[in-house]
Amino acid sequence: MPYRSLQDDIVYEEDQYELTEDGRVPSKHSFTPKYQDGSTIDWLHEEGLERERNYRLQSQAGVRGVLFPTLESARLWLLVILTGVGIGIAGAWLDVLVKWLGDLREGRCTYGFFYNSNACCTGIGPGEICNEWKSWGDYLEVNSIFGRSLLHASIYVVLAIAFAGSAAVLVESWAPLAFHTGIPEIKAILGGYVFDKFLTPWILLIKALGLALSVASGLSLGKEGPLVHVACCMAYLLSRLFKGFQQNEVQKRRMLAAAAAAGVSVAFGSPLGGVLFGLEELDTFANESEVMWRGFVASAIAAVALQWVNPFGTAKLVLFQVTFVSDTWRAFELIPWIALGIMGGVLGSLLIRLNVEIALYRRNSILHGWPVMEVISVSAVTASISYLIVFARVQTSELVANLFQECDPTKPDYHGLCNPTATTQNIFLLFLTAILKVVLTAWTFGIAVPAGIFLPTIGIGACLGRAVGLITQSLYRAYPTAWIFLSCPPDPSVRCISPGFYAVIGASAMLGGVTRMTISLVVILFELTGALSHVLPIMICVMTSKWVGDAMGKDGIYAAWIAMRQYPWIPPVDYRDGGEIGTNVMKPLSELVVIRDGITTLGELRQFLKQYQFHGFPVIDGHDEFVGWATRQALDANLGRLQLDDTATENSKKCTFSPNRFRIPLHERVDLPEALEESIIELRQEAPQELVVNMFQKLNLRQIIFTQAGKLTGLVTKRDIVNLLTSHFPHTGALARTQPDHDEQ
Amino acid sequence: MPYRSLQDDIVYEEDQYELTEDGRVPSKHSFTPKYQDGSTIDWLHEEGLERERNYRLQSQAGVRGVLFPTLESARLWLLVILTGVGIGIAGAWLDVLVKWLGDLREGRCTYGFFYNSNACCTGIGPGEICNEWKSWGDYLEVNSIFGRSLLHASIYVVLAIAFAGSAAVLVESWAPLAFHTGIPEIKAILGGYVFDKFLTPWILLIKALGLALSVASGLSLGKEGPLVHVACCMAYLLSRLFKGFQQNEVQKRRMLAAAAAAGVSVAFGSPLGGVLFGLEELDTFANESEVMWRGFVASAIAAVALQWVNPFGTAKLVLFQVTFVSDTWRAFELIPWIALGIMGGVLGSLLIRLNVEIALYRRNSILHGWPVMEVISVSAVTASISYLIVFARVQTSELVANLFQECDPTKPDYHGLCNPTATTQNIFLLFLTAILKVVLTAWTFGIAVPAGIFLPTIGIGACLGRAVGLITQSLYRAYPTAWIFLSCPPDPSVRCISPGFYAVIGASAMLGGVTRMTISLVVILFELTGALSHVLPIMICVMTSKWVGDAMGKDGIYAAWIAMRQYPWIPPVDYRDGGEIGTNVMKPLSELVVIRDGITTLGELRQFLKQYQFHGFPVIDGHDEFVGWATRQALDANLGRLQLDDTATENSKKCTFSPNRFRIPLHERVDLPEALEESIIELRQEAPQELVVNMFQKLNLRQIIFTQAGKLTGLVTKRDIVNLLTSHFPHTGALARTQPDHDEQ
Repeated sequence: MPYRSLQDDIVYEEDQYELTEDGRVPSKHSFTPKYQDGSTIDWLHEEGLERERNYRLQSQAGVRGVLFPTLESARLWLLVILTGVGIGIAGAWLDVLVKWLGDLREGRCTYGFFYNSNACCTGIGPGEICNEWKSWGDYLEVNSIFGRSLLHASIYVVLAIAFAGSAAVLVESWAPLAFHTGIPEIKAILGGYVFDKFLTPWILLIKALGLALSVASGLSLGKEGPLVHVACCMAYLLSRLFKGFQQNEVQKRRMLAAAAAAGVSVAFGSPLGGVLFGLEELDTFANESEVMWRGFVASAIAAVALQWVNPFGTAKLVLFQVTFVSDTWRAFELIPWIALGIMGGVLGSLLIRLNVEIALYRRNSILHGWPVMEVISVSAVTASISYLIVFARVQTSELVANLFQECDPTKPDYHGLCNPTATTQNIFLLFLTAILKVVLTAWTFGIAVPAGIFLPTIGIGACLGRAVGLITQSLYRAYPTAWIFLSCPPDPSVRCISPGFYAVIGASAMLGGVTRMTISLVVILFELTGALSHVLPIMICVMTSKWVGDAMGKDGIYAAWIAMRQYPWIPPVDYRDGGEIGTNVMKPLSELVVIRDGITTLGELRQFLKQYQFHGFPVIDGHDEFVGWATRQALDANLGRLQLDDTATENSKKCTFSPNRFRIPLHERVDLPEALEESIIELRQEAPQELVVNMFQKLNLRQIIFTQAGKLTGLVTKRDIVNLLTSHFPHTGALARTQPDHDEQ
Repeated sequence: MPYRSLQDDIVYEEDQYELTEDGRVPSKHSFTPKYQDGSTIDWLHEEGLERERNYRLQSQAGVRGVLFPTLESARLWLLVILTGVGIGIAGAWLDVLVKWLGDLREGRCTYGFFYNSNACCTGIGPGEICNEWKSWGDYLEVNSIFGRSLLHASIYVVLAIAFAGSAAVLVESWAPLAFHTGIPEIKAILGGYVFDKFLTPWILLIKALGLALSVASGLSLGKEGPLVHVACCMAYLLSRLFKGFQQNEVQKRRMLAAAAAAGVSVAFGSPLGGVLFGLEELDTFANESEVMWRGFVASAIAAVALQWVNPFGTAKLVLFQVTFVSDTWRAFELIPWIALGIMGGVLGSLLIRLNVEIALYRRNSILHGWPVMEVISVSAVTASISYLIVFARVQTSELVANLFQECDPTKPDYHGLCNPTATTQNIFLLFLTAILKVVLTAWTFGIAVPAGIFLPTIGIGACLGRAVGLITQSLYRAYPTAWIFLSCPPDPSVRCISPGFYAVIGASAMLGGVTRMTISLVVILFELTGALSHVLPIMICVMTSKWVGDAMGKDGIYAAWIAMRQYPWIPPVDYRDGGEIGTNVMKPLSELVVIRDGITTLGELRQFLKQYQFHGFPVIDGHDEFVGWATRQALDANLGRLQLDDTATENSKKCTFSPNRFRIPLHERVDLPEALEESIIELRQEAPQELVVNMFQKLNLRQIIFTQAGKLTGLVTKRDIVNLLTSHFPHTGALARTQPDHDEQ
């Protein structure tokens, strides 16, 4: 008989947050299912629990049957609203902290250490000069130019190292999981991966603090991705206040999805972009309008909270407000824009590859043991080089805001960008900054501090775009009457080309190449810049960039990290098989651990449950006919209810599951039909692989049973599908944290 | 044995477009499956055909194995691009035609009959007066005031009746299916409903022409929905040029989805909104990034084409450009906005109910036989009443554009809206117009002309919103120092409240109440108005309106029409059962027409195929064990290949499908295992109803088989699920065009 052990050498840590809470369980469905970190939830089973719970609520007698479901719904929306408000306030608070820490690298407020440069100078009229905010040279009254330069550079570099180092120490000592962006993990969790350790209050605290420190240190990283992680931690924490959302893994994930949308909403000041990010990138709202709706509400409320706190004092959600010379654009501009799209696709793919290579090198070299030292070195190098280049010295968000601005004689000329005599120099510096940032970002995204990839990518793209815009503008100024510029006014002093908008286009292209997002990206860029009138060029450019990028490698940066970590996440790709059928990925019956209806004894079953940590077991009868699927939890619960006889009797009793059990006398059998799952999907062996993948993608399945004329022939699990879909990626599992497969038959 | 006929009294029309094309078919999968209009496609089966086709293309020897798939892909994108360009140009041409016809009701161009008022007056400077465009009174040199008024009113009313009447005659004589919006049918078609007659070139032509006439007639209808239908007809026509897209029903639907997105893109000048409309409302891109991507490209290209043709001479996509007094809004404004949201939800639900009641009355009264007369009466009433009310006289699109404008002393004051002494009168007139338009729209949406519901709904909402805005503004002007207005400047001459933006809010609320869209609606409104800085109020208002509307009735207007027509369309709702299991909707074995493996003879099988028009039959063996699912097409094809013996022998031969066939001697059996479908999904009887509905929603299934320990127990078809989900709607099937169920077991 095919009773084979696949991996019985795995030892499990108890999940510290849930497993110890309850002991003996009274009925099949009335206990909380426990999943170990690293396993995959059984979506259909959890839905079943939720259904039972709702049914119990609704079937209460009298008023309670109406009141309880209403209260339940009210609690849910209260949780959504609280989450939105919490994330909005946390995001605003982070912005304030980052601004203060970042400003501290350049100077301080004379009348109070804890004011940032904006807060310090409030109440100053437009023409006045703010004397309250002093650079360190002024404040410490160093008068020699050399001394001042040295002082400024030293403080700049030293504080950068101090901030980054503290962030790394915090992360390494208190919450090692709080490093990196968190998006790959959130994607995996929302897809059913169990990773409760990733959402603890400690991680929330350390990630938020560490994020503020690492952003302020001037490392080439952004706060957007980690903010989504922070939002999810917050929702997880809040949902503990409400029983029910915490107990049901599917409900928990629905709340987390709404929180993630709210996180994006706050990160970019983009409520609509948040919802669409949830829809497209997190792939969680598919067909669940209820969940999308929650994301919508959470996003809107988070944005209201952010606007109410008003961290930048502008009362605006649009972070990088763009004002264009004209609302129209000319057909010839499509040439540089499509060129930018191609550049974005190529450079994005290169950035992903470089980042993957560095991550592999880090894991396999001496760096692996010295994460804090690595952070300190990277921040020292970043700060030293950045200080020398005018565009790299300021914080990336400030750089992007300035690059997106059009030249306007009535406004200050940031970094000399609008100086027409320095165009060549500017173009060179912009390209240099872009290349530098590509290398620094590829290294930084993965070191032991919280780090997002969005903002640096926008920065790289904005530099490239502005450079291309300047080139186009110079060409137009040099040859204003060339046929290609015919649609522009012939007088070159009239503006025709907006280099600021080229920067927006460049940012879109680069983001498209790195993240491979499409619609949510376009919406986020609108809401970020207010550039609604230029929707078409942005769409065309994102399209080009994604096409070029996909030709150079299918995976976006998050998909690459998910594959390297080997999380059980099924990418929402359109999988097309080459004629293979389901049996291709199937684990055949001979390799499965099965329970035999009416043959396996109670003693053997107990032995099974000890020996194998699998989530569930197929039950078949003597002729291999498929009887059902018994989960470990249901078996445990059913066995727990049994009156225990002495071991000898017990071991002679047969376990029965099907209606055929009456062939066996009552005293020789144990009836366990309740241990069978209701929601089990069967397919024929000849079912095309495409259908199998499709069902896993759309129904969040954990396993599909293959039968032929009633006989069990094999089993496909989510892990098999994940392996199939990541097989093209050469470094799958290179950074795996947990042993895969450990609870999947 | 349970051989029962369910409906053998139905006679089928042959599908005139496809059925006559081919006769005998050589192999199982190499023929085009034919579906009758009114049936539902078998999504998995079609996917299988597509897979086989791709496999054949890729497995060609040598260069052809690379070249053919590349060509295939190039053809596909060429089709997408052509569709986009075609829809963009068609939309622009329609705009021009509508503008000319509409202007004709007021006057004509002196130097050319075929110029509209804009084209007639091109080249006129901003200060100059256009003398070339003359009202009919001027042109015909009628000088008495009474005579002029009478002339203008008569021409207005007579031309309205003439336009609407011609549209109705065109529709009734040439293409009766071209009336109404078309969105419900497109939704059903995209969901798998077969309705090829709905997409013919005739319909394309008549719908486009009729649309121009009916919009120009001033009836309370819009062009947006019908334009989506026109776009789909165009894609269908173009796809005939490309073999393969036409033959495969799933491929065809993917192209139609992209075309529908492009249609919305052109209708609203909203490329991003088009994609999101496809995503949310048409529910077709779910998890199919490839299809979403096509919609993205088609939308973008259609918008480029529209902008290139530039029908309005503004070179802008934003149709109703909004400019606000300030970018910020005050917290107290949430009160009137949420009030507007509630009004929108209530009025939207009322409009839906009224429309449904009128549709039922039309069907069951004498009106049913006199569609053209009804159109003429409605247009006469509409024109007569509208001429009397200043806000109703202009075309709805013009009214909306003006209502969205802020008052600005430097610009003309449309309709006296900005006259501060006429505020009370304006508020009264605006409410009156809104009520009038609700009634007229409820009647017009369903008469025998092409008619969309979007624009009239926007018009109603804009009137309401502007009225509420004027009320708020009056309150502020009367009590500028009240505590609620504290956040406004205390000087009432400074603007604090923007009634124009209230009109935008009102339009959002009303649209939310009528269509129950959420995200795509918000995006369309952005792109329509450019009001990006006010994303939050619009989101909050759409939320409120949808909540209130859903409380008054779950269905949006399209869902209501789909239910009345009884199209097999599964709404993408979050279905939650109350503890029911799948058997609740299941048709049990005893009611099914089955083939018995090794028992049914060839003669009986032939008899079966003649007697029942079902799409497929379950095959079971002697013990009711489920062997497989044989489609009618596959059976036909396999029987066609047989060498025919004499009838007597034939009738004694048993049909065999399973590997068990070897029990029967070769000369006594016919082997038909190839007739079984590969993609058949089995569930246990205890599977929760929620899972069953979910699988139909997400996998586009046609049927699910229920088995218990290998034995067939029943069958659930798409039609059963549709009936389940529309059971709450009291008028399901009231307007049904085709007999339902006619090909579903």
